Amino acid sequence: MAWFRAGSSVAKLAIRRTLSQGGSHAARARVIPSQNRYFQTTVFRSNAQSAPVPRPVPLSRLTDSFLDGTSSVYLEELQRAWEHDPNSVDESWDNFFRNFVGQAATSPGISGQTIQESMRLLLLVRAYQVNGHMKAKLDPLGLEQREIPEDLDLALYGFTEADLDREFYLGVWRMAGFLSENRPVQTLRAVLTRLEQAYCGSIGYEYMHIADRDQCNWLRDKIETPTPMQYNRQRREVILDRLMWSTQFENFLATKWTAAKRFGLEGGETLIPGMKEMFDRAADLGVESIVIGMSHRGRLNVLGNVVRKPLRQIFSEFSGGTKPVDEVGLYTGTGDVKYHLGTSYDRPTRGGKRIHLSLVANPSHLEAVDPVVVGKTRAKQYYSNDVDRTKNMGILIHGDGSFAGQGVVYETLHLSALPNYTTGGTIHIVVNNQVAFTTDPKAGRSSQYCTDVAKALNAPIFHVNGDDMEAVVHVCELAAEWRQTFHSDVVVDIVCYRRFGHNEIDEPSFTQPKMYQVIRNHPSALEIYQKKLLECGQATKEDIDRIHNKVNTILNEEFLSSKDYVPQRRDWLSAYWLGFKSPEQLSRIRNTGVKPEILKNVGKAITTLPDTFKPHRAVKKIFTDRAKMIETGEGIDWAVGEALAFATLLVEGNHVRLSGQDVERGTFSHRHAVVHDQETGEMYCPLDHVMINQNEEMFTVSNSPEL
Amino acid sequence: MAWFRAGSSVAKLAIRRTLSQGGSHAARARVIPSQNRYFQTTVFRSNAQSAPVPRPVPLSRLTDSFLDGTSSVYLEELQRAWEHDPNSVDESWDNFFRNFVGQAATSPGISGQTIQESMRLLLLVRAYQVNGHMKAKLDPLGLEQREIPEDLDLALYGFTEADLDREFYLGVWRMAGFLSENRPVQTLRAVLTRLEQAYCGSIGYEYMHIADRDQCNWLRDKIETPTPMQYNRQRREVILDRLMWSTQFENFLATKWTAAKRFGLEGGETLIPGMKEMFDRAADLGVESIVIGMSHRGRLNVLGNVVRKPLRQIFSEFSGGTKPVDEVGLYTGTGDVKYHLGTSYDRPTRGGKRIHLSLVANPSHLEAVDPVVVGKTRAKQYYSNDVDRTKNMGILIHGDGSFAGQGVVYETLHLSALPNYTTGGTIHIVVNNQVAFTTDPKAGRSSQYCTDVAKALNAPIFHVNGDDMEAVVHVCELAAEWRQTFHSDVVVDIVCYRRFGHNEIDEPSFTQPKMYQVIRNHPSALEIYQKKLLECGQATKEDIDRIHNKVNTILNEEFLSSKDYVPQRRDWLSAYWLGFKSPEQLSRIRNTGVKPEILKNVGKAITTLPDTFKPHRAVKKIFTDRAKMIETGEGIDWAVGEALAFATLLVEGNHVRLSGQDVERGTFSHRHAVVHDQETGEMYCPLDHVMINQNEEMFTVSNSPEL
Repeated sequence: MAWFRAGSSVAKLAIRRTLSQGGSHAARARVIPSQNRYFQTTVFRSNAQSAPVPRPVPLSRLTDSFLDGTSSVYLEELQRAWEHDPNSVDESWDNFFRNFVGQAATSPGISGQTIQESMRLLLLVRAYQVNGHMKAKLDPLGLEQREIPEDLDLALYGFTEADLDREFYLGVWRMAGFLSENRPVQTLRAVLTRLEQAYCGSIGYEYMHIADRDQCNWLRDKIETPTPMQYNRQRREVILDRLMWSTQFENFLATKWTAAKRFGLEGGETLIPGMKEMFDRAADLGVESIVIGMSHRGRLNVLGNVVRKPLRQIFSEFSGGTKPVDEVGLYTGTGDVKYHLGTSYDRPTRGGKRIHLSLVANPSHLEAVDPVVVGKTRAKQYYSNDVDRTKNMGILIHGDGSFAGQGVVYETLHLSALPNYTTGGTIHIVVNNQVAFTTDPKAGRSSQYCTDVAKALNAPIFHVNGDDMEAVVHVCELAAEWRQTFHSDVVVDIVCYRRFGHNEIDEPSFTQPKMYQVIRNHPSALEIYQKKLLECGQATKEDIDRIHNKVNTILNEEFLSSKDYVPQRRDWLSAYWLGFKSPEQLSRIRNTGVKPEILKNVGKAITTLPDTFKPHRAVKKIFTDRAKMIETGEGIDWAVGEALAFATLLVEGNHVRLSGQDVERGTFSHRHAVVHDQETGEMYCPLDHVMINQNEEMFTVSNSPEL
Repeated sequence: MAWFRAGSSVAKLAIRRTLSQGGSHAARARVIPSQNRYFQTTVFRSNAQSAPVPRPVPLSRLTDSFLDGTSSVYLEELQRAWEHDPNSVDESWDNFFRNFVGQAATSPGISGQTIQESMRLLLLVRAYQVNGHMKAKLDPLGLEQREIPEDLDLALYGFTEADLDREFYLGVWRMAGFLSENRPVQTLRAVLTRLEQAYCGSIGYEYMHIADRDQCNWLRDKIETPTPMQYNRQRREVILDRLMWSTQFENFLATKWTAAKRFGLEGGETLIPGMKEMFDRAADLGVESIVIGMSHRGRLNVLGNVVRKPLRQIFSEFSGGTKPVDEVGLYTGTGDVKYHLGTSYDRPTRGGKRIHLSLVANPSHLEAVDPVVVGKTRAKQYYSNDVDRTKNMGILIHGDGSFAGQGVVYETLHLSALPNYTTGGTIHIVVNNQVAFTTDPKAGRSSQYCTDVAKALNAPIFHVNGDDMEAVVHVCELAAEWRQTFHSDVVVDIVCYRRFGHNEIDEPSFTQPKMYQVIRNHPSALEIYQKKLLECGQATKEDIDRIHNKVNTILNEEFLSSKDYVPQRRDWLSAYWLGFKSPEQLSRIRNTGVKPEILKNVGKAITTLPDTFKPHRAVKKIFTDRAKMIETGEGIDWAVGEALAFATLLVEGNHVRLSGQDVERGTFSHRHAVVHDQETGEMYCPLDHVMINQNEEMFTVSNSPEL
């Protein structure tokens, strides 16, 4: 709870602050590498007269490798001196010890509590951290009936109403959110209020399943430190504008094509502002390109409003009046495939940057796009030399039914941290309709949330009430921050509803009559947000009308333009793929052979092992035989042919990537692309050494999980 | 930690004990239904003089609906009287209060501790409960390098060596394993020793992710209460005998068919005794039939030793000399398919019962058998009227690679608690080879254990060192107890190794040279267990030789008999399926039609809704139209034809089960097998009412998860 990793940025910050406060003494601190990777930042000092003062943790353990001084003992001496007489040290050190160390010593007296009570209060706090989300107000329709866990019940800890205004000692735990304030003694009521605010509002945080302490502490700090989402007027106008676009886009389509199936976003409109804010934040933190995968619902909205596919083009395709030319027709000519189209665009961000967005085409098979998106992201990282994987990011948008139900989701998640498959973290957004097609959650999954699969992967999960616009923005930004900080997957679960059912020509009341009774009378997220802004005085009726009219004017203009819109040959692949050859071009390539000298040359490389390397004797024989084949040109077998093909692709400057079950050795022990030293276990990959100074990622061969 | 559910058997036991101790007073207790589903069983009383005594929780909250008395106030009065003067109450009550309530009051003085220290010690205990498994000695080869979590480090809590012999107050928590003994004050050393014994031995328990408090407490009690696995001499001889069978079976095959591929169990031989003990325990707890699914490794051993397929038959099939007759040849004639065969048998148990075992045939596609096993189990439950699902149980044996890698595992787990799919819990056993085919775990999964997928489902996971025979037995029994107590899935992860690689004709040193260096010099589990029994004097060399010779004699006799073995026509389906028609028999069925009166009759049932039922008006019209079709016999559409088919199958006494995505309504709103009342949301299924007093499970239609 109160610990962080030595060398972490937080630790450094804490120590840097110490030193800047310590002034001239800083130079005297010296580096003592600590055996203990974590250290305690808090020293306890009891004010109970009867108990002896517990030993403080020596401050020398606060030293860190970035410190450059001369004496590790110094800090300890300083601490002892301060404990003896606070006035004996420099005022800056006094401040430091007071803030950092001595809260307990300077706190007001504790009355009427016992050790047991404090222990029980600690368990209560822990219970909120673990289970608070179960009490969060996540369902915009208010229909979900959840049993509040018993461990959030005061009575379980022996507390009653009468205890609410008693003061309790909670300890002085650094990095523990609201526990870290300089208020070690609080009333039970104050503690509870803060816990309820932090864990039981519009956001339900699930993070205590994460094994990594740093990650847990980072999140706990974000959640418990009281920084309510206070956006200023300007920021709120941007959010309102984005929500207006999201809402009016669907309204407009509904008006112009009343009987069409469009898989509209109504009931989940906050997704669009959420994504935009997420991307803005990601861009601030260094992301330059985002690959998006999603299924049908809201896809047109994302295409038009987030990826910024020209509206006139969307409208033109929607009309279907203008048939696209030649082979494009294959992709837009039939049925509901307009929802399958992809596109890409450079989007300007709020922070003044540009971010490249591409939405991957996808089939009706909902989650099939998942591995495609992570694969494309990984490829972009390779080709843009994005070694730390912070510039290219994948986003997957899921439905609740398919995220909970489909094994491919789990399989994709399980690739996320493998060295040769990771993309530095995918952000998953669940557009949680609280119903699959016609199937209720209770018949669709065996666990509490549709997102529970992510718990197997140590990913944090942020559930959010989809009607609370600013809460959605908050978790979307937090997800971007998580991804850029820890380079791993994170899940945002936007709990919303489908105002018009699975699609506009389906009748949801057949199977969910009660839910749709409520939906019929439920205001839209836009109405709710407008009301909120009007009530708090951060927007006027005129502001709202102005934005409304602006959006509608543009939609109408684009609609008019769509009538004359002539589809381009490659609209469906908006970003022309430079160097990507058409079938006609490919058919003109006749000679793929290489000169014998090159084959001899690379052949030597792929049959040679380092002198000091000790292969298995059977493998040694295989390599000797292979060398002979290369030398004589006779008896070349399949494995050597394959290796020659890879090697010549490499010398022609191509990236070669081989992945699948047991591909390194080959299922039938035929390939041996990676050889293992029998004494040291070291690995050697001959195809990494076809050229001098070959980038070791140029040839990648990697066993995949057993799929 | 210290709580249990009102009405639970544990609570009842506690109260029953109270009452039996309370003697004549019992009759005066009265039932007060509590709002609070959990109640506290412990009342705290501080011995710190400076702090006021905290209010005890009124004992009236201990009342429970099975109590039948007259005054709820009585217990409170008694408690107050006892607090004032222990001698003022009956000795039996005094004993009760001492044991149940007043440990803190009677414990020796606490010295030198502060509130903070107790809180930190509590966090340390919690850390062991959550992360102790990370320190357990799971790898028989001792190769796995795991980083011990920092939160198991004393120093993290400000404790040092010097604190080890200080006494700390841990509180008096009922149902918290070793915390529940009458020793609220313990030395830090004693606490640590117990935590290490409970959590860091040959078994690693993962259970703190389970949301249900009762389930957590049940396990914690099993884990922390000091009942080391002390088996007596007789029991140990049974275990030794079973391990001997497992080991000698493989040795025998290896000797007789030296060059054959058999996917032997060497390195994981403890699986067999583990399974047998699990089945014995399950039978004790009411299980009568077990459906087993597994892939190749150890399959012959399971067939021969657990399911008791006659050894002569196995040997005969292995020789391949005797070709099976006619169609059986299709199944045993080629390649490695002897590992695909299934069988069934009634096995006598140690407890004197008989348990029916069936091993389902499976293809090479490893985990494809999972949904087949749960489906077969569910069917058996239906046909044997096993309403509470305690008599028929499914067991799935997985490899580490496929359990971690394959989405179908997740999909099957996600069916486990759905009302129309549950089987009352499957026991999963992972034969954890610590390597897939050639792929190391670090390249095969993105999380710590191969079993992490089960965490998404609230299943407990028991990791066990496969070389510790008795630890394997212990967790196998525990898994059976869990399944019969909570009717949900549980995972046993036997960490072992493959002595001879993926199969006997493969060379594992090519890719895992270091691991196989260690394996070459590693004693077998049998050798380890024999040594243990000899050392502790519970077996003599003669005992061991006797068992060894007995097993070998039988193996040799069976081998001789196998030469004359004539395969039976249906060996591959050993239990002849009564009433299951052969293709020839089926081809002789000509007339499947029913008389028009029957169609009219059932037709009325399937087009009628109850008078008070208010369907959607469109659905009402559909039912009116359908009724007309039945009446006139004209214009019968696909949906009505289907419903008539189902209905006539039902009246002929067949069970009809329809499952899949959106099958209740039908993806295109055509079926409406389940109709929803538009006002109440109530559901009505006409096909449940084809006959009078029709068992409602006879026709089952159930939406499946979105797969």
